Order: sequence, then structure tokens, then C-alpha cells
Amino acid sequence: MITLHTWTTPNGRKPLILLEELGVPYETVPVDIGNGKQFEPEFLKIAPNNKIPAMVDDNADDEADGGPLSLFESGAILTYLADRHGKFLAPSGAARWQATQWLHWQIGGLGPMLGQLGFFSKQDDAFALERFIKEADRLLAVLDTQLAASQYVAGDEYTIADIACYPWIMAASERLQEPLAGALGKPNLQRWLGLVGARPAVQAGMKWKPRGA
Amino acid sequence: MITLHTWTTPNGRKPLILLEELGVPYETVPVDIGNGKQFEPEFLKIAPNNKIPAMVDDNADDEADGGPLSLFESGAILTYLADRHGKFLAPSGAARWQATQWLHWQIGGLGPMLGQLGFFSKQDDAFALERFIKEADRLLAVLDTQLAASQYVAGDEYTIADIACYPWIMAASERLQEPLAGALGKPNLQRWLGLVGARPAVQAGMKWKPRGA
Repeated sequence: MITLHTWTTPNGRKPLILLEELGVPYETVPVDIGNGKQFEPEFLKIAPNNKIPAMVDDNADDEADGGPLSLFESGAILTYLADRHGKFLAPSGAARWQATQWLHWQIGGLGPMLGQLGFFSKQDDAFALERFIKEADRLLAVLDTQLAASQYVAGDEYTIADIACYPWIMAASERLQEPLAGALGKPNLQRWLGLVGARPAVQAGMKWKPRGA
Repeated sequence: MITLHTWTTPNGRKPLILLEELGVPYETVPVDIGNGKQFEPEFLKIAPNNKIPAMVDDNADDEADGGPLSLFESGAILTYLADRHGKFLAPSGAARWQATQWLHWQIGGLGPMLGQLGFFSKQDDAFALERFIKEADRLLAVLDTQLAASQYVAGDEYTIADIACYPWIMAASERLQEPLAGALGKPNLQRWLGLVGARPAVQAGMKWKPRGA
């Protein structure tokens, strides 16, 4: 069984979407980051960086030399699950590396910059705010240009690069509409949001919330 | 032949180190980001995100369905080269995923946060500066704790996770010594810096500069 420690953030929704796409059984453990649960010793054992998501696969078989496999970092979890189930990431060839480069683009660029923009949009720091608006605008333009040339983020197949980008763009559409209206309204980005957002697994992952919330 | 488009930055040095470790032939194309060369149309064709490094492998064989393989994002390039040559990243099992998670931790956390700290250390914005000092301190403490438990970043083997982290920590040691003195001085981090820094390939990658510079 896969146990996913997660929360209702863009990074937290990525593995939820992929697990729904794969249709494999999993359990969730909500980690309420608004209440500091990411600093509890039991969580830090599997996620020393005190960030969700983290995953334990106790049937990892050869993947973990027989024992349960514990993983943190959303991009690593997406890659592991896609490889293990042979879906949404080609096993080799150009398609694998195109998906991998765009996944890394989301992990190292789009995510951190939208994250900083989200933070500074609630602060009184016009200089930093302007910096992150400019960078988010640039990144969204890069994505729109890529989506003008291909159906999905990494080419004509839906991959973990789409799954990695989608919750971040949706969060920006909800919370950063004002500073990013021009960039978010671009036609190729909008087409792709509609295409990916129509998938039942994406809808399920985006709707997930902890029991009782 | 592998052609690496790169520059003298932490992300630019990562694939240089790995190529030196692998001992495979490669050529470099300097992309002078101080003079806007990353915005030239020829470079944007292989690096639509206008960032170095980018790589073209014209002997990619099956990896690129017979044609040259073009890749951007330092983490994707490290993973591709390690997989292609079967070194510094286990082909499967727990060791592969431990290295992958720490690589992603560098790509999505350590790199962006040290990068922002570098930027704000030269600006007049005490609020943002304090934010990134705090986050860099936290990340370096996570790494030091990990290095207390294991020889290298992802366990007892030297992997692309070490290669990804090393140039960033060295850049911080040179340029951010003042705000990060406490975090950078931690004993396990210092032990690891000495261990990795003693490798001839690491020294070669860290010394690389464009011809004539």
C-alpha cells in the first residue's frame, strides 16, 4: 500500500492527481501545515526537509531492496510512481527526457517563483513583489509558447510534467489573478488548462481535502 | 559528441563536473549571460527558458529515436548523463530514489533560495533579505543533518545529488559568507565539502572558464 502524507497545496496535489490517474490503492495522511504538523518528529523521519508531500510504499519490492520505500520531494515521487507503473513517463528515449526537463522546469522555476510571488503578494514589499511578478510572467510566457507548439507540456502525450504544472497554474489563477492576468489569459495556456482540467483524475486530485475539513 | 552550452554559474558547473567524472568527450559553448547571450534565437531553440545549461548529444542513439537529443534544465541533464553512462545514479532500487529526491531538493529548494538570497544580498530590501537568509539557513541545516547520517548527500555513494549541491554551496561560501557563516560552518557540511572538493573532476568543473576569459 502507498501512504501519501500530503496537504491541500499545489505540491501536495501533484501525487494525488497521479495516484488517481494510475488507479492504484493509496491512503492519505493529512499533514496540516497551517498548524505546524510538518515539524513533528514522526513526519521528519520521512521528510527531513519538513515539506509535504512525502510517500511511503510498503510494497516497493525490488525498488527498495525488499523494505518499504520512503520518498520526499514531489518531483521525485511523481517520477517514482510513473516509472513503477509504466505510465505518464516514457521508459527511455527523447520523450522521457522532454518530460523530465519540463518537470525540472516546474520544480526549479515555476513552483519556487509562483510560491515567492504568493508570499510577497501578501506583504508590503513592492520591490520584491515586482521581481516575482516579472519572473512569473516570464515563466508563464515560456509555457504558453511551448503549448503553442505541442498539445501537452512535454509534447503530444500527457505526462508527469503536466501533472506537476497544473496545480500551480490553477493556484495562480485563483490567488494571483490580479498581478498575472495577462500571462494567465494567454490562449495556449487556457486551452491546456481546459484539456488537463477535464480529466477525472485531475478533478479528483484537485478536490481532495482532509476528512472533516 | 556532447555539446554543453554553459557558463560559470553553479547550475552551469554541474554538468561540467559530471562530464569530467564520466570522462566522456564534450565541447563547450560559452553563453555569456552577463551580455544577454541567453536570449539569442539559436540558444532559445534548445533552451526556451533562456537559462544555462543546455546540452545537445548528437550520438544519443536510441535515446533520441536516432536524432540528436537536446536538453535543458541542469537536473534533467545530470539524470540523462548519469543514466546513459550508468554512473553516479543507481539504475533502480532505493539508492536511485534517494539520489533523485535529494537532487530534486537541490533543484527546487537549495538552488532557488540561495539564488534569491544572492540577488537580495545586493539590494536594499531588508525584509526580503531576512526571508531568504532564514530559508537558506534552514536548508543548510537540513543538509548538515543528512550529512551527519551519511557519507554523501544521498547515502554512502557519491551521486548526482552531490554534484548538484556542491557548486551552490561553494558559491554561497564565496559570496554569502557573511549572512550564512553559522550555517556554512557546520561540521558535517564542512567534512563533505572537503571530500567532494578533493575529486579531480570536481576541481576541473569548478575551474572551467570560457576561452580567453
